[in-house]
Amino acid sequence: MDVTGRPRAAIVVTGSELLTGTISDANGPWLARQLSDLGFEVAHLFVVGDRPADLTAALEYVSGCALVVTSGGLGPTADDLTAELVARFAGAEMVLDEPMRAWIAERVTAWARRNKVGEEVFAALDVGTRKQAMVPVGAVALPPVGTAPGLVVRRPGGPLVVVLPGPPRELQGMWPSVLDAAPVKELLAGVPAAAARSLRFVGLPEPRIAETLRELGADHDLNAVEVTTCLRRAELEVDVRPRPGAEHVAQALAEAIVARHTRELVSADGTSTDELLARALLDRGWWVATAESCTGGMLASRLVDRAGSSAYVAGGTVAYSNAAKVSQLDVPAELIEAHGAVSPEVARAMADGARARFGADVAVGITGVAGPDGGTEAKPVGYVCFCLTTGDGLVVARDPVLPGGRADIRERATDVAVHLLLRAARGS
Amino acid sequence: MDVTGRPRAAIVVTGSELLTGTISDANGPWLARQLSDLGFEVAHLFVVGDRPADLTAALEYVSGCALVVTSGGLGPTADDLTAELVARFAGAEMVLDEPMRAWIAERVTAWARRNKVGEEVFAALDVGTRKQAMVPVGAVALPPVGTAPGLVVRRPGGPLVVVLPGPPRELQGMWPSVLDAAPVKELLAGVPAAAARSLRFVGLPEPRIAETLRELGADHDLNAVEVTTCLRRAELEVDVRPRPGAEHVAQALAEAIVARHTRELVSADGTSTDELLARALLDRGWWVATAESCTGGMLASRLVDRAGSSAYVAGGTVAYSNAAKVSQLDVPAELIEAHGAVSPEVARAMADGARARFGADVAVGITGVAGPDGGTEAKPVGYVCFCLTTGDGLVVARDPVLPGGRADIRERATDVAVHLLLRAARGS
Repeated sequence: MDVTGRPRAAIVVTGSELLTGTISDANGPWLARQLSDLGFEVAHLFVVGDRPADLTAALEYVSGCALVVTSGGLGPTADDLTAELVARFAGAEMVLDEPMRAWIAERVTAWARRNKVGEEVFAALDVGTRKQAMVPVGAVALPPVGTAPGLVVRRPGGPLVVVLPGPPRELQGMWPSVLDAAPVKELLAGVPAAAARSLRFVGLPEPRIAETLRELGADHDLNAVEVTTCLRRAELEVDVRPRPGAEHVAQALAEAIVARHTRELVSADGTSTDELLARALLDRGWWVATAESCTGGMLASRLVDRAGSSAYVAGGTVAYSNAAKVSQLDVPAELIEAHGAVSPEVARAMADGARARFGADVAVGITGVAGPDGGTEAKPVGYVCFCLTTGDGLVVARDPVLPGGRADIRERATDVAVHLLLRAARGS
Repeated sequence: MDVTGRPRAAIVVTGSELLTGTISDANGPWLARQLSDLGFEVAHLFVVGDRPADLTAALEYVSGCALVVTSGGLGPTADDLTAELVARFAGAEMVLDEPMRAWIAERVTAWARRNKVGEEVFAALDVGTRKQAMVPVGAVALPPVGTAPGLVVRRPGGPLVVVLPGPPRELQGMWPSVLDAAPVKELLAGVPAAAARSLRFVGLPEPRIAETLRELGADHDLNAVEVTTCLRRAELEVDVRPRPGAEHVAQALAEAIVARHTRELVSADGTSTDELLARALLDRGWWVATAESCTGGMLASRLVDRAGSSAYVAGGTVAYSNAAKVSQLDVPAELIEAHGAVSPEVARAMADGARARFGADVAVGITGVAGPDGGTEAKPVGYVCFCLTTGDGLVVARDPVLPGGRADIRERATDVAVHLLLRAARGS
């Protein structure tokens, strides 16, 4: 238990490739969200290499936590040592789980046949299969999603350790079995509900929230909650987590924050912006089209991220060149000539063009200077023109200068466009 | 020094929002890459919350390393404690750096005026400015990119600690000053060059590389190198890092691996696939267009990610609905009727349509079942049809079933399309 009054959990991610910057760890943040939502205080997130001493030291370091979740190091090769090291940490012997071995062998053989792997590889595969089927005595083995079983092991007098595979699809796929394992259920029974409130705002500078919190401190017990703020592109997320027993303080504080910033509020219940936009478009029965220059398809791709988007995404055009703006979006060449490709006028013509061509109810045009070159004094890098138009005559234009590098500018521009669409679809 | 024979470095990232899964840490992987490339062995990557005891414990834990880099916790508010805790760790007092205070105050005041912040906030801003200008005695203060200075502090008899701000843009922007700071230069003088080889393959299963390494172990001293393999969507990255003095072993091993898998080789010098594609398109003088259904603009957006892409990206169409495929890409309605929207025939017509409409030299059409719904026995979720066509008659078609969930399928499909383009542009 710590400042939050919640049992502490630790995440230990293994993989040398995560320490050379070859790849970013996706499991840590995902697990952190799950554990927080379950009511744990996530105290540590460690990434360690595939070196036995480092993993063992990390396990000892976090051994004061109630729960430790590891990811990675369950592969068939000799350098994947997590199961063995966790067994040693828990003081348990490893034994071969014969049904598990047979089950894995069947899948590996099928894979090898499909991939026409040569006979000489089969012996190596068999060694790997036996290794993956070794389970610490007393552990709960979780059914593999790939070929590696997960494990739930308790160190006597110490933490419960949940051992999961590294591939995010396997790790996430195994999570329901984790929650269903008897020792995990038993642990969870003693964890107070999280009851966190997650508020999301747009166009609200972080110091304004800090000021609001200072003022609300007079009427609310800020020591009974943990408030974290996080700026993500155009959005500010404010999470209010109660100490156990202080749920009413968190609720009241969240409501007070919302009441002070209604105009900038996007969501008061943690629903994602993209989900809200999807609902709003479906409610309106609107089809949406996109006309993108500097974002280059990022807005369309974000709209299509969501399953079921075929019910409201008509399509989009990436008109990166002037010629494409003219030929594919019917932007008059004279308009580009007169105002430049990056101009509110062209953004509007792009939106109108996409709306007409895709038969959509609403469209957004985006044209800007993403950099690093191409900026001028009048239209610097980061200057982006947006225009949203609808079939019933609504026209909303913006032309901010967005901060950051090329990637920041494009992502933030996509965010701005999503919020323009959300506001229009909500009719607010 | 450890298994790699290299001085060890640790990265300590702070931020409670990184432990609730609200946001993913971008600084850890970026710093890991920089430190690895400088020749360090990155031994630990820790994410800790904004709690003094946790950060202090993490610093003590990694105090055996030669270098520790922290990110975050340098903000103006009272819960940002990194500078103070690092000073305590190094046994140094904090003193006000008056020129730094004046410099920050100027920027904060300008920001406040621009944002029309009320007078009542100014006092709070002043407190924050004074806090950000506190510097440990004996430390090198690095000029702020935002409003927080970075710090380089040595713990007597312990590691050199580099303290950097949390926003990735500020952290990355400050990196040149880090490398230029005298104590860092001094440390780097004793670090052996990394000389790692980074190989990238496509269509090569991981066990095949494992098998290759086993075989090459007969002629190469595998104990003199560290080999990490990492599967990223369709690509397999193999990094070969030498122990100091074993550079020739790493070079020879890398060449031997390449010689065994020339057909699947994408890059032997670490150049990114996207960079190779850009160069190949520029070499060919090709303009590229995209016609996307299930990827929904992700391919176009990836092509536009690179600065200078306006020299070879003509544009693209996101034709998510059948109507859009017909009206915006000239796919014959009968073709959709006869073969279905997800079919090799439609993929080819989409490519031809985009190429003609955008006046491009090469185009890729992508249509598939991204799921989670819409799969059939003949065309399951993950079934994606690709077709690349060029003006001089080249036609390359693929229709694999890609693994994973909706996001995996779309990302992997984008990867497949990029590799189709790369192979065609290279003429290989």
